[in-house]
Amino acid sequence: MPLDEITTPGLIVDSAALDRNLATMAAAWPGRTLRPHVKAHKTTGIARRQAALGHTGFTCATIREVEVMAAAGLGEDLLLANEVVDMRRLGTVAASGARVTVAVDSEATVAAAVSGGVREVLIDVNVGLPRCGCPPERAGGLAEQARAAGLVVRGVMGYEGHLMHEPDAEQRRRQAAESMALLARAHADVGGDVVSGGGTGTWTANTGVTELQAGSYALMDTTYRGLTDLPFEPALTVLATVISVGDGWAVADAGLKAFGMDEGNPRLPGYLIWYCSDEHVVFSAEDGHELPAVGDRVRLEPAHIDPTCALHERMYVVDGDAIVEVWPIDMRGW
Amino acid sequence: MPLDEITTPGLIVDSAALDRNLATMAAAWPGRTLRPHVKAHKTTGIARRQAALGHTGFTCATIREVEVMAAAGLGEDLLLANEVVDMRRLGTVAASGARVTVAVDSEATVAAAVSGGVREVLIDVNVGLPRCGCPPERAGGLAEQARAAGLVVRGVMGYEGHLMHEPDAEQRRRQAAESMALLARAHADVGGDVVSGGGTGTWTANTGVTELQAGSYALMDTTYRGLTDLPFEPALTVLATVISVGDGWAVADAGLKAFGMDEGNPRLPGYLIWYCSDEHVVFSAEDGHELPAVGDRVRLEPAHIDPTCALHERMYVVDGDAIVEVWPIDMRGW
Repeated sequence: MPLDEITTPGLIVDSAALDRNLATMAAAWPGRTLRPHVKAHKTTGIARRQAALGHTGFTCATIREVEVMAAAGLGEDLLLANEVVDMRRLGTVAASGARVTVAVDSEATVAAAVSGGVREVLIDVNVGLPRCGCPPERAGGLAEQARAAGLVVRGVMGYEGHLMHEPDAEQRRRQAAESMALLARAHADVGGDVVSGGGTGTWTANTGVTELQAGSYALMDTTYRGLTDLPFEPALTVLATVISVGDGWAVADAGLKAFGMDEGNPRLPGYLIWYCSDEHVVFSAEDGHELPAVGDRVRLEPAHIDPTCALHERMYVVDGDAIVEVWPIDMRGW
Repeated sequence: MPLDEITTPGLIVDSAALDRNLATMAAAWPGRTLRPHVKAHKTTGIARRQAALGHTGFTCATIREVEVMAAAGLGEDLLLANEVVDMRRLGTVAASGARVTVAVDSEATVAAAVSGGVREVLIDVNVGLPRCGCPPERAGGLAEQARAAGLVVRGVMGYEGHLMHEPDAEQRRRQAAESMALLARAHADVGGDVVSGGGTGTWTANTGVTELQAGSYALMDTTYRGLTDLPFEPALTVLATVISVGDGWAVADAGLKAFGMDEGNPRLPGYLIWYCSDEHVVFSAEDGHELPAVGDRVRLEPAHIDPTCALHERMYVVDGDAIVEVWPIDMRGW
């Protein structure tokens, strides 16, 4: 099917750009030193390309992501890098033969792992982002509790999300070092051979982990592209059809249900986005550009890739204007 | 199934509050004078309750909404109140026996209706919102073109979306009168018996339409609740589980993939929302409230209902703590 026949709005993945991003990251973080985060794209089609490069352990944010990855044969080493209170579904996945490790940061989540049938855990440590993770000084005690309850503690994780979009690369590096010092302290108390953390924004700044949890690098978005030191290219756009042209503006059929909006409007190079409504994006032309006509198609760059992918059913993978694969976004929902 | 066993995050509909909202609107806009907009909830379960009150004509924003409504037996009179360039799928729905009317605002969309096999149209008129709709003075000419091409022109539509959230009720009423004067002028030139427009925010302010296109009134959201003159109640919340408690904050498992974020963070009465990330909402307690414990459940109010519903697979309809129905959000996607 040619690209101009797909229903809009539709997600378009530039296959070559995706492969370049994957190769750039794999050169710096080869094999199991990268644990790609699937939450960014929720698509086993992308996970398969990452696994083919040797990244056979993955990071997940939801139980469903773990379930779908395991069912797709990608369950060699799945980390649910998030706290869960009811782990019975995870226990079922583990019993099916996949390797499942889960983050714990409290007595309650340790107990949930035991009662849910999950055998392996990481102690989740707060390294500066006020979200999940126990204080570093509590990590050792929690590991003891977990081991006493029969769990295998593989090590620690700590996500420095508070500095992932820090524009100053040197500042990002300095803060990452501070966060990883906290994680190292916890690791000394906890033991185990895994120190997991980091993301696309700290792919060079973070030197303290044994495995990097980056996900956004594969497809990128305009927010991460604000970090000018990152080499990753935009590989995903939202294809939209112009449905109306007004007196100085045009309207295309991709809106609040086609874009994650928490980081603001999508971008359309050469055009100024006025606003999005449910099924519309309204824009004018910047100097040197002309408004499109009704029926023309435009490709917009989302501001935040993760919630954008979560709104769509599939990605069209293209080589130029030819669709070479269609990937279901098969890890959506919970 | 009791409410405390459902997977979180999950959408919870208060059945009684929904029914009260539907009844309040039906008293003011009975039967076919209301053409409920399904884009707000994308759920045939809610549309069935609206149809049972006599609102048997519906407004849609996407082709898929039209297809699913028709397949559900709710196709007595479906208006796609949006421009579409490729109408072949709509023609198929019309050929199956449903009544399909589509908005047109240009020669290109008139041509699309003809070639797609859609027989009935409304002339979409710009009444002040810079989005779709032809200028009022062009409406008559476009209607002539449509009729010359063999289409039935049922009348006009014009959506005064630019004033839907105007907080001052008197200002909203005055602006609605201005918009509807533009629509009346176009209607005089176009003819037909349909004058369609309006929404939840102008349910009393708009006195110029033969049918109101309101949708949000059924479930409401915090943005519409900012209009203090509206009598509609919040009927939808997002149930989330507390997964971690920090030193002064708590974390629940509903984030950017569970809430439409274009109008900002969700609300949790008694608590201050710090931020959302992909699968988390982080909040602290306001004076007089205590932080919840790990495993507790909280119910958050979304800021914008339409993109929130588009992120979920189903709604749990509750009477108190008992789930009485489960409705698939069956009109998602395109």
